[in-house]
Amino acid sequence: MMTISKQTIAETFERIVPFIRRTPIIDVEVPGVEEPVVLKLEFMQYSGSFKARGAFANLLGTKVPDAGVAAASGGNHGAAVAYVAGVLGIPAKIFVPEISSPAKIAKIRSYGADVVVDGENYSAALANCEAYLAESGAMSLHAYNSPATIIGQGTLAAELETQVFDGVDSVLMAVGGGGLIGGAAAWYQGNVKLVGVESEGCATLHDALAAGEPVAIKPQGVAADSLGASIIGDVMFPLAQDYISAVTLVSDDDIRAAQKWLWDNLRIISEAGGATAFAALLSGKYQPEEDERVAVVLCGGNTDPAG
Amino acid sequence: MMTISKQTIAETFERIVPFIRRTPIIDVEVPGVEEPVVLKLEFMQYSGSFKARGAFANLLGTKVPDAGVAAASGGNHGAAVAYVAGVLGIPAKIFVPEISSPAKIAKIRSYGADVVVDGENYSAALANCEAYLAESGAMSLHAYNSPATIIGQGTLAAELETQVFDGVDSVLMAVGGGGLIGGAAAWYQGNVKLVGVESEGCATLHDALAAGEPVAIKPQGVAADSLGASIIGDVMFPLAQDYISAVTLVSDDDIRAAQKWLWDNLRIISEAGGATAFAALLSGKYQPEEDERVAVVLCGGNTDPAG
Repeated sequence: MMTISKQTIAETFERIVPFIRRTPIIDVEVPGVEEPVVLKLEFMQYSGSFKARGAFANLLGTKVPDAGVAAASGGNHGAAVAYVAGVLGIPAKIFVPEISSPAKIAKIRSYGADVVVDGENYSAALANCEAYLAESGAMSLHAYNSPATIIGQGTLAAELETQVFDGVDSVLMAVGGGGLIGGAAAWYQGNVKLVGVESEGCATLHDALAAGEPVAIKPQGVAADSLGASIIGDVMFPLAQDYISAVTLVSDDDIRAAQKWLWDNLRIISEAGGATAFAALLSGKYQPEEDERVAVVLCGGNTDPAG
Repeated sequence: MMTISKQTIAETFERIVPFIRRTPIIDVEVPGVEEPVVLKLEFMQYSGSFKARGAFANLLGTKVPDAGVAAASGGNHGAAVAYVAGVLGIPAKIFVPEISSPAKIAKIRSYGADVVVDGENYSAALANCEAYLAESGAMSLHAYNSPATIIGQGTLAAELETQVFDGVDSVLMAVGGGGLIGGAAAWYQGNVKLVGVESEGCATLHDALAAGEPVAIKPQGVAADSLGASIIGDVMFPLAQDYISAVTLVSDDDIRAAQKWLWDNLRIISEAGGATAFAALLSGKYQPEEDERVAVVLCGGNTDPAG
């Protein structure tokens, strides 16, 4: 099992960099925030979210069984595994819960994967996936709770560091199962203020930090299809306890307002989960210091633009 | 009257840079194109298109009459003038033809401008605007046919040059009245291959170069609401004759396919005119050399995402 560390993230970044997009950043003025805010436009990543990073970290140079790979996913991880498997010529079977957006399901199919839509939530899709793994011998890719996945997502923080030459004081990112922020926590190790943002209906990290251990929740609300893990990953949880400075909760209305602002002001379409971190800033629920330079990750765009 | 030159563009860039966004670039793989293509994401500019550059170039530090400013516009110039006037505290009256998209009209209003929707095309709106200018004494901002406007739009080329460190061999941009490509022509002066792209229904530059002088056309097709000038600007035309290497025509279907590709692969919503330059590349109607490094400007995003 790989160790999650700054070094393994740097090594993995070097390995996957020919296969991923260096997603752009843009400085924007945000109402109520003194300094320009850095937006990291990760929704432009292959497959429409940061999760392609974790999938490449798992599969690149790995000997995969003849049955290929399988994954359970609210959508973005499934799209990422399907995309990466397609690029690498590996068969993929993706188990998605019925709450997944039609746009995400269509995208997964477009990459050539076999998609099984069954189960009312992520846990049910995961159970289906595990039954299939046991029977087929396919390789499993967990959506967030494995070292390779967390290390892969951590390459986003490594990449951002090469882009913001004058540095940032804080980085805001949405939290579902914790793969992205777990990797970022391992990268930054407290050197920047790392802030997790969750919707009130998907507060896995908030509740786990309060309880001192991962606790199961019932994901709800507008961001549930991307942030709706039912429990924070135990692999990343110690990193969260050590290196995450704060968790901010936002409402579904805050998220919708953030999506609207991003469209009205930047012509960016962000899915609810992708706009969640920005919602903390726009709503004022996360209040930066006067001279604080904030970066916000817009982590996914797999939504129906008409929706 | 300002001279259009590399020097005046550089000076204007320095003057307006605190007021505009440095819009990001992203390297992407495009089917059928050997080298990664640089996309310049100018649709993220204030007001949703590059035209904010020209409006700031006209208005920043300028003594404006009490009646304020007026402009006739298919939409993006109107939005830009309204936005810039709003930032600078200047009254603005914008005359738009009835073919303008509801999304653009709503955007212009949102910046606080007085919007007059009247006339079946750009020429009719321009006539209305000119009548108002004569009667009110307001300051006129032409959408493309003035040196200050052309110089302002040329700052996009100056900015792009600071972003692509290894340089590009060619730059593709859509042409309406010629403000943007006129400024770029003055900036590059033949040092890169500058390619204008027009929809078949809005071939103002193509027809003018063939005729050796600007000739009137009747704008038609899917890009008419942003590229639908009825004649190329005579101010920029000599620059086009000297420094534009080629004009590529694309069909409405090519443009729609480009819009779909940008959404499916990059989660970018581009208006038809904004996707026109990219359509030349994706359709194969512009075919780069094997080692040619191409940049494409995505110049506007003011559309209805559900449309």
